[in-house]
Amino acid sequence: MRIERSMLADLARGAAFLGSGGGGDPYYSLLLAEAAIERCGAFDLVAPDSLADDALVVPCGWIGAPTVSVEKLPSGHEALAGIRRLEQIMGRPVDAVMPIEIGGGNGLAPLIAAAELGVPVVDCDGMGRAFPESQMAIFNIRGLKACPSVLTASCGALTVIETDDNLTHERIARALSVALGGIAHMVEYPLTGAEARAHAIAGSVSAAIATGAAIREARAARADPFDALAEALRATGLYPHCAILFDGKIVDLERETRGGFSVGRVIVDGFGGHGRMEIEFQNENLVARENGAIRALVPDLITVMDRETADTITTERLKYGQRVKIVAAAAPAMLREPRALRLVGPRAFGLGTDFAPLEELNGMEGT
Amino acid sequence: MRIERSMLADLARGAAFLGSGGGGDPYYSLLLAEAAIERCGAFDLVAPDSLADDALVVPCGWIGAPTVSVEKLPSGHEALAGIRRLEQIMGRPVDAVMPIEIGGGNGLAPLIAAAELGVPVVDCDGMGRAFPESQMAIFNIRGLKACPSVLTASCGALTVIETDDNLTHERIARALSVALGGIAHMVEYPLTGAEARAHAIAGSVSAAIATGAAIREARAARADPFDALAEALRATGLYPHCAILFDGKIVDLERETRGGFSVGRVIVDGFGGHGRMEIEFQNENLVARENGAIRALVPDLITVMDRETADTITTERLKYGQRVKIVAAAAPAMLREPRALRLVGPRAFGLGTDFAPLEELNGMEGT
Repeated sequence: MRIERSMLADLARGAAFLGSGGGGDPYYSLLLAEAAIERCGAFDLVAPDSLADDALVVPCGWIGAPTVSVEKLPSGHEALAGIRRLEQIMGRPVDAVMPIEIGGGNGLAPLIAAAELGVPVVDCDGMGRAFPESQMAIFNIRGLKACPSVLTASCGALTVIETDDNLTHERIARALSVALGGIAHMVEYPLTGAEARAHAIAGSVSAAIATGAAIREARAARADPFDALAEALRATGLYPHCAILFDGKIVDLERETRGGFSVGRVIVDGFGGHGRMEIEFQNENLVARENGAIRALVPDLITVMDRETADTITTERLKYGQRVKIVAAAAPAMLREPRALRLVGPRAFGLGTDFAPLEELNGMEGT
Repeated sequence: MRIERSMLADLARGAAFLGSGGGGDPYYSLLLAEAAIERCGAFDLVAPDSLADDALVVPCGWIGAPTVSVEKLPSGHEALAGIRRLEQIMGRPVDAVMPIEIGGGNGLAPLIAAAELGVPVVDCDGMGRAFPESQMAIFNIRGLKACPSVLTASCGALTVIETDDNLTHERIARALSVALGGIAHMVEYPLTGAEARAHAIAGSVSAAIATGAAIREARAARADPFDALAEALRATGLYPHCAILFDGKIVDLERETRGGFSVGRVIVDGFGGHGRMEIEFQNENLVARENGAIRALVPDLITVMDRETADTITTERLKYGQRVKIVAAAAPAMLREPRALRLVGPRAFGLGTDFAPLEELNGMEGT
């Protein structure tokens, strides 16, 4: 599939939803990607299956607090500088790029580099959504190495990290993102084509485009964009269940930027006195409770959306008084495996509960 | 000059004094250097003048809080791993190593690498003492670049930093040292032989050996080690003035590890009710005030020593009740130039006063 400029807004809209509140608002990434396509022309979105076994595939993304990402703008050179340095280290040119996480602005992170380098974007990612920490990527879950990785900052500073331990890598990268002003671009988990085929979450980029398009088309047809979103998600096969969990108004919000993350909680009161939903987040929304009862749990997706437009409200954009719907979706199956839940399940985030699937928690077995 | 195992203790003793309270207690560095010489044999200390113009000279040292350096032990592989990686980046083998700062344990930092690589140590350093921040090196004062630099940790993690801005380099390196457990080894400011000759502080390694030997010999001869220290320092030409500022007992100590530094103040009461001296430190001792009047100021050296043995007490080793003498020495002339004082003078440390030389503050003009 050829990615044209006109498709980028759909990708941004869909990626924002898949971010589960995180990955950063895609707005600036969208502007940069549109400008890159204007400058360099369109590029291809290719299936993982089309990759040569020994291709060099580079996941790209931003690391840092989303709250910073909307105030400290990128220079636009970060991704390319990081990839060029990685090519030097690997001693060969990159064959394709991919988002390290499809969620939020990071779903668009590799697009500038793809346009400028003339390489394709692979239709897959490393998280199937967004997660706050680097070692939560499926590639770590599957035993691949994060290093060599390269962080680049808008000021031009560049750092290379080399460690065999992916959690140490995350700690180093996180500290660097703070030192570099709160946000930095990272290329990490350089993959062979064979590894990308075996372990990446396939189809997530086209899933984001399809869901973004569905919302846009429903709006234009004055249909319900939430119905359209749910239908499009199910049609991807990757996100087989979707539920509107709640409808109400934000009445309380706690949010701080701590340790390189945006952490806090938001409380939504139901319209007409219909209960209260509380969501905890660490960059991404982690758990949704209605009147104390759990309705959805990480790694399933939980997204706060404008109740009229179905625009995603990322965690750094939440405000008192917003009228919202809370939408949840089943995570890709690879994230629900036991080896995945150890790293991206509720207990990995300090929540004192085991994972339970969205469809079980909400009696949706048949959907 | 050949550096034999028997000279290392003198070097450690002298470097501890020149550290002005910082650079870390040399004890572990001494053990590691002695073991390296046992294993690999002695190595040469060569004058900067002997370096070829295009030689690759690599300054080595530890970055972090000295308080951590005495609790988290090195693996002993850090320096060599960092130098090997720098050789890769520079595309050529290293010709010689040198301490980034002669003060404290860092005065011995390059010795393991010298023994293992079979390269000489150059008789010079980048600070003429110890300073808490990387951009305080004479090489930054003289406009040279800190990068590429390589940080290595005891766990084996390695990071490469590339930025043209030396202050950004310090911020990145400091954050990394914290992320890597509070301390890391760093090779930085890779120099040509011509640059080392023109800008390094020459003679500081042999000065440390000479002052360490003078203290040892005075003790053995039951002479006053402080007299011997002062005489040896003046004889180096590099540290032309020395004064015993105070003699008393530590009665108060505030010290915390903050932002990757050991910061605080120590108060010494004079014996026989003879006033009170207060010293502020950030890794290194920065200012000594007697009853409120300044007696010595950074970049001049201020060192707290055991009043019987003339053993240096580095800032992380200060304790309530220690009987001490406070010794000050004039900094090397290169550190007193206006361009140096902007970066290493009192105002660079937030002290609200201009630099005044030790000999002026203490009426020592004729000494």
